[in-house]
Amino acid sequence: MAIASSPSSLHSSLHSHSKTSITPRHSFSSSQGFVKILSRSDFCAVGRVCAGPLRFHANPIKVSASAAPVMDKPDSRVSTVVDVDLGTRSYPIYIGPGLLDEPDLLQRHVHGKRVLVVTNTTISPLYLDKVTKALTHGNESISVESVILPDGEQYKNMETLMKVFDKAIETRLDRRCTFVALGGGVIGDMCGFAAAAFLRGVNFIQIPTTLMAMVDSSVGGKTGINHPLGKNLIGAFYQPQCVLVDTDTLNTLPDRELASGIAEVVKYGLIRDAAFFEWLEKNMPALLARDPSALSYAIKRSCENKAEVVSLDEKESGLRATLNLGHTFGHAIETGAGYGQWLHGEAVAAGMVMAVDMSCRLGWIDETIRKRTLDILQQANLPITPPNMMTVDKFKNTIAVDKKVADGLLRLILLKGPLGNCVFTGDYDRNALDETLRAFCKS
Amino acid sequence: MAIASSPSSLHSSLHSHSKTSITPRHSFSSSQGFVKILSRSDFCAVGRVCAGPLRFHANPIKVSASAAPVMDKPDSRVSTVVDVDLGTRSYPIYIGPGLLDEPDLLQRHVHGKRVLVVTNTTISPLYLDKVTKALTHGNESISVESVILPDGEQYKNMETLMKVFDKAIETRLDRRCTFVALGGGVIGDMCGFAAAAFLRGVNFIQIPTTLMAMVDSSVGGKTGINHPLGKNLIGAFYQPQCVLVDTDTLNTLPDRELASGIAEVVKYGLIRDAAFFEWLEKNMPALLARDPSALSYAIKRSCENKAEVVSLDEKESGLRATLNLGHTFGHAIETGAGYGQWLHGEAVAAGMVMAVDMSCRLGWIDETIRKRTLDILQQANLPITPPNMMTVDKFKNTIAVDKKVADGLLRLILLKGPLGNCVFTGDYDRNALDETLRAFCKS
Ligand SMILES: NC(=O)c1ccc[n+]([C@@H]2O[C@H](COP(=O)([O-])OP(=O)(O)OC[C@H]3O[C@@H](n4cnc5c(N)ncnc54)[C@H](O)[C@@H]3O)[C@@H](O)[C@H]2O)c1
Ligand SMILES: NC(=O)c1ccc[n+]([C@@H]2O[C@H](COP(=O)([O-])OP(=O)(O)OC[C@H]3O[C@@H](n4cnc5c(N)ncnc54)[C@H](O)[C@@H]3O)[C@@H](O)[C@H]2O)c1
Ligand SMILES: [Zn+2]
Ligand SMILES: [Zn+2]
Repeated sequence: MAIASSPSSLHSSLHSHSKTSITPRHSFSSSQGFVKILSRSDFCAVGRVCAGPLRFHANPIKVSASAAPVMDKPDSRVSTVVDVDLGTRSYPIYIGPGLLDEPDLLQRHVHGKRVLVVTNTTISPLYLDKVTKALTHGNESISVESVILPDGEQYKNMETLMKVFDKAIETRLDRRCTFVALGGGVIGDMCGFAAAAFLRGVNFIQIPTTLMAMVDSSVGGKTGINHPLGKNLIGAFYQPQCVLVDTDTLNTLPDRELASGIAEVVKYGLIRDAAFFEWLEKNMPALLARDPSALSYAIKRSCENKAEVVSLDEKESGLRATLNLGHTFGHAIETGAGYGQWLHGEAVAAGMVMAVDMSCRLGWIDETIRKRTLDILQQANLPITPPNMMTVDKFKNTIAVDKKVADGLLRLILLKGPLGNCVFTGDYDRNALDETLRAFCKS
Repeated sequence: MAIASSPSSLHSSLHSHSKTSITPRHSFSSSQGFVKILSRSDFCAVGRVCAGPLRFHANPIKVSASAAPVMDKPDSRVSTVVDVDLGTRSYPIYIGPGLLDEPDLLQRHVHGKRVLVVTNTTISPLYLDKVTKALTHGNESISVESVILPDGEQYKNMETLMKVFDKAIETRLDRRCTFVALGGGVIGDMCGFAAAAFLRGVNFIQIPTTLMAMVDSSVGGKTGINHPLGKNLIGAFYQPQCVLVDTDTLNTLPDRELASGIAEVVKYGLIRDAAFFEWLEKNMPALLARDPSALSYAIKRSCENKAEVVSLDEKESGLRATLNLGHTFGHAIETGAGYGQWLHGEAVAAGMVMAVDMSCRLGWIDETIRKRTLDILQQANLPITPPNMMTVDKFKNTIAVDKKVADGLLRLILLKGPLGNCVFTGDYDRNALDETLRAFCKS
């Protein structure tokens, strides 16, 4: 593999590329379109301050104008790149099949020479070797450690988090290391929080392997763990260097997990993208049959929707909260049923139905939207009611510790207006909430 | 107490004040000079986006020009305010006697109606009531919870941190609450990290009660906890809304703790402030006798020095590391001796002597600087050698997990040039390090 030998020629090729935008800010083009990617020799080697080919240096290093970019894989293919625009913390999401066979993609975002892959007992036999090879291929100076956590939402806690710190500290990782999350949302959230807190912050890459993680949890920088009294109560906002979505990894994902991710995909349609919702209504069978191009399009469109919201409101002052449609009810279901019983997306699906039902009772949306929501979720084999054990009181108690309660007022995301519109508000008739709770609970 | 009744008049008084700088960016004036402070009615009530009288609103609320500021305590006194300049995360450090008797000062930085005071078993009988009164005086809508942690560096760990989360979650605090750290550096670091991680970040106020916390740990936003294998390995950069230093709280501080803080004060002189070092040489007896004006000046000068460094380099890319003079050796001593055996400042004192010794061996500083360092630390009753149990090997092993080791290269803060100058470098003769270690260790 041809690697430019001096730092200045690495920079030169970087800077010659910064002039060409290879990652359109919003790539609404066909998911089949190929975007040429850069080879490793195009990557800047100066570390933290430079996070990829499209960033500018605060202090650009002067380079000779004659040093031409060295390209060893001019034909590398990434079908889609979605940019999450967060100023100096911006990062790309690469989406496509076979991306784990493109070591350049990963390696350009690794800082330092040491990597800690955080994964779990289910995923490590499937993908850890492949990821380790991608990280080290053609680059013997990179050393990879891994920590294999137990699998399950019930392990997304402080005790498991400590295992990541233990490993990082025992193997004497320093500040210039990179943490890689290889797994679903549980691994991504824990690894991200560990990366945020280890030595007060180290580099971090996400390789999501569930649809849920691809379309939701790996985008936007929310990381964290659960507390026995509530989900995601302890954490950090922390952005990765990049997210690498290899759609091939979905081939091993259980059906129920796939459906769970689809719930979040449907959410984007409901809250802000009517055209996408309509596309989903037509293409749900293709998604369930794991048609690769349907999956790619759904992931791209979801990431774009989430990235756009997150760019506008990184710290969730208002707009970002709309991504939590169905989540207040959903978290109550997850907590009530016991972590790990209901999948996140399943709980969100039932929660969205409740939010939509309440919106209807308030007269804010047309009955047809409620009907279409039920239909599409049922098509996806998702639950449309909470489990029997959820009583009105259980809902009310859990909702009270929800983060969206500001000064005692419960604010909810509700649909209002034509399909694709929602509000985040505490200004609604409490009777509608009570009616919805009674309608969905046996007691 | 007169409180402007509508949000718009609160804003109006805020904005009328934004035009007058009441907190000079660098107040090098006499520590006796009074700076008029604002009454509660001058404070902006819109929450997170506005953190005090000197910030500007991103979206200023339009106000009637006739609404005049309502001042109920035009003559409140704060002898010194040091501004830590970090853009949107800037905050003031108020320094002076009797500040806990000025409820306005604290209350203007409380967001939301609920406060969690984090303190320990030693400090709560001394100051918790006073702080609770300051937080609630004239403002019955504020409710104060407290969590009283065990006292000691050995409790600065994940288990104790969880007690803070437990309390916050059990009492159902939401995102608009404020955490208040009441105590020394241990409490400040833990409470700060808890505030950073609880619901991914809530408001935070520091009330340091040790000299160490006043001159060092409360300034600059480093927060965190220890890991069994090393100090401060898990944490966050997180800035408080304000730091309130009531110098009266030092009256109950044990002598040994006072001396520990003095070590950090001496550090500022050594690394960047020769004039301050000379002032300290002359005024050490006054400091040890707890002369209030000497203490106030030393705290102010220390905070200014640290604030300046932190403003220039918040995330410790280089300059900020110089604040760790003596800390690499010091951390090794703290770890080696067992947490809680040596005070942080005591270990730093011995560590600084070692760093200065090494600088001397390298020929980077004059022998007189070494002599003056030994003298001033001895005057302050601080140790100038590590404990007997510290062997060369123990130093080397602990140093290897130190955060300042980038890619295997141990970088150190060493003095170089005239008094008040230092470097942070890995480019030194390793023999000098070995000689220093051998000179200070029995084996
Ligand atoms: N940070 C955020 O913004 C955000 C957003 C949404 C959800 N989340 C969090 O994400 C979590 C849910 O994520 P999830 O749904 O990915 O659950 P998960 O991480 O538990 O993964 C689901 C299951 O699939 C297995 N798995 C993962 N990839 C696989 C693959 N390619 N082949 C076979 N098996 C595979 C996992 O081992 C696990 O058993 C929740 O903790 C939720 O709170 C976070
Ligand atoms: N975050 C940073 O930038 C930073 C900088 C320096 C030190 N630190 C950390 O700070 C800690 C050391 O802080 P410290 O020296 O304040 O130790 P500390 O917090 O343990 O306090 C020392 C002792 O004094 C007691 N005490 C505190 N205030 C008192 C008062 N007014 N009257 C009587 N007793 C009082 C405490 O209960 C404790 O027993 C270490 O953990 C160190 O890592 C952090
Ligand atoms: Zn979700
Ligand atoms: Zn220190």
